[in-house]
Amino acid sequence: MLEPLKRVLERTGLDALVIVPGANFRRVFGQDFHQMERPLAVIVPRQGEAVAIVPHIELGSFAPIGFPGKVFPWRDEQGYMGAFLAAGEALPQLRQAARIGVEGQRMRVFDLFALQKALPGAEFMDVHGEISTIRMHKTAAEIALQRKAIELSEAALEATLAEIRVGMTETEIESILLRNLFAQGADGLAFAPIVAAGDNAANSHAHARPDYRIKPGDALLFDFGGSYQGYHADITRTFFVKEVSDFDRAFYETVLRANTKGREFARPGITAGDVDNAVLTVLEQSQFAEFCRHKTGHGLGLDVHEAPQIMRGNAQVLEPGMVFTIEPGLYRDGEGGVRIEDDVVVTETGIECLTSFPRELRLVG
Amino acid sequence: MLEPLKRVLERTGLDALVIVPGANFRRVFGQDFHQMERPLAVIVPRQGEAVAIVPHIELGSFAPIGFPGKVFPWRDEQGYMGAFLAAGEALPQLRQAARIGVEGQRMRVFDLFALQKALPGAEFMDVHGEISTIRMHKTAAEIALQRKAIELSEAALEATLAEIRVGMTETEIESILLRNLFAQGADGLAFAPIVAAGDNAANSHAHARPDYRIKPGDALLFDFGGSYQGYHADITRTFFVKEVSDFDRAFYETVLRANTKGREFARPGITAGDVDNAVLTVLEQSQFAEFCRHKTGHGLGLDVHEAPQIMRGNAQVLEPGMVFTIEPGLYRDGEGGVRIEDDVVVTETGIECLTSFPRELRLVG
Repeated sequence: MLEPLKRVLERTGLDALVIVPGANFRRVFGQDFHQMERPLAVIVPRQGEAVAIVPHIELGSFAPIGFPGKVFPWRDEQGYMGAFLAAGEALPQLRQAARIGVEGQRMRVFDLFALQKALPGAEFMDVHGEISTIRMHKTAAEIALQRKAIELSEAALEATLAEIRVGMTETEIESILLRNLFAQGADGLAFAPIVAAGDNAANSHAHARPDYRIKPGDALLFDFGGSYQGYHADITRTFFVKEVSDFDRAFYETVLRANTKGREFARPGITAGDVDNAVLTVLEQSQFAEFCRHKTGHGLGLDVHEAPQIMRGNAQVLEPGMVFTIEPGLYRDGEGGVRIEDDVVVTETGIECLTSFPRELRLVG
Repeated sequence: MLEPLKRVLERTGLDALVIVPGANFRRVFGQDFHQMERPLAVIVPRQGEAVAIVPHIELGSFAPIGFPGKVFPWRDEQGYMGAFLAAGEALPQLRQAARIGVEGQRMRVFDLFALQKALPGAEFMDVHGEISTIRMHKTAAEIALQRKAIELSEAALEATLAEIRVGMTETEIESILLRNLFAQGADGLAFAPIVAAGDNAANSHAHARPDYRIKPGDALLFDFGGSYQGYHADITRTFFVKEVSDFDRAFYETVLRANTKGREFARPGITAGDVDNAVLTVLEQSQFAEFCRHKTGHGLGLDVHEAPQIMRGNAQVLEPGMVFTIEPGLYRDGEGGVRIEDDVVVTETGIECLTSFPRELRLVG
């Protein structure tokens, strides 16, 4: 089960990798763990046996993994440092001048400090991107779970739209959406959903307001996703409440053209940067160029934001099995915003769009 | 708004603190942010003005905070390092021999590496516990939100019990619980719920199984909590399916005696260690001493696990406003387990139990 990590070690020339609970951990071991006050870490050296530092309270869940290496458990009353030091003793090949890669966006500072004490001669470096390549190409089984997360999320959105009335607050609508996601079978949330109306839709990462009531003419933006067995939907749709101005209609249609461009343009063999460039060019050549604010998208899998980033300059070549979002947006500060986001998987010949919620301008409420 | 952090600086003699999105951040600024691939950090020096490094995409949500200091935004296409370096330039008092405290259980390694580059002469140390003291005494407003999270969670549990039938799988029951939590108005989950039956109830941090069907005589353990506006319930109840053996009844009653002891014994002026000792002593003096595996509980607030840890040796004196769990358990590997968990707040004279779900042995299904 450690082969994917061994391949990263070969490619990078590093002496060891450390992984902690999270997306990479789940992909390697088929299991995840809460990350709270109890550190859990796996050290995979290029040469020799792997070791794991595991809180005693997690041993019952850790054992079924069948970890191929030595386990150093620790109990609350002992603290974790002894287990880290014992693990360090078991890895003499890493105690001097070793170069060790860690997941910089996931590992916490107290894990790092414990590792530095346990392996005092080693140098630790952030190779989050390199390690995460083990998840970049999705299997058919992964895509099936992704589809399931998307299907239930789209059903929840449709059910939510049916309940929306003028005068509801953003937080009321958020709560309806959450109820519908779990009624449809979500087993978690990809992230705290964004439900933003009117001027709040101009914040690309908005928070729902308890004191803003939706009114005719407002944009109403949903950016959300239910999770299913570790995989996530990430969908954005923007509606208008009761009516839409000519300006907003043109604004919306411009974003939709950019979104469509992305879905039509993406294919294996071109780069992630090429896709972003094609999408942004639609926005930049429109009358609304000044309202363009962010890149086209990001990879999607066990992490909601992962490689490949769909961003100008990213030379990553698209290959079958990669899953990412296409989510162009336009935002007018203090006025409103529109974003339309789909999730796609690269196939042998193009892409397949996993999201199917209609994109035509729609009035709600 | 930085006064609580300034007091930590006074007490510790540190030259600066860095906080990142999470519970402490939310308590200080009344707002939280997703932690994904974009670092956001606030540096509060003992002398001079605070600085914030903020992804451009978050500025719309960051501005309403009214941050009292200089903001260094960065855009995706630039990367974050430039903003960290500019922030470092703005903090000359921290560039040499400064001692800087960080949240070790929350800050990620890539944040730390960026800070180390920006402030190359500084020494960084984990003072997670010291910083988190700003949240240890809850206000009446916080306790009201905590109550709301608990009320909706208890209603969800009651609704879930009414739907349980012999032959359901653990994951089916988990999905019913999730649906009910959000139907009752949860706006998030404290953590991925534990729904464990039979031998799985012996794993204190179990994962629900899709292939295990509950059968008469099984223990059925729920450890779960809905969230509301950032505050969490954390409740455990253990039921038995249809029938209970004499052994299991005695096992259950022993855990209940320990739980009751904790609720009766806890009061201001004694230590967190004293409470754990009183509770564990009940288990250790019972016929089931060998099945005792973990400490009594943990603090509960914007983090699900926080100070004060209710653990032998913890000299933290209990004071009014502290909120923590009392959750003794007994576990027989391969057989089953029982845990009963309540959330309490310390008052002027004792504790008030915030959870009220009945604790008497109950048959379900």
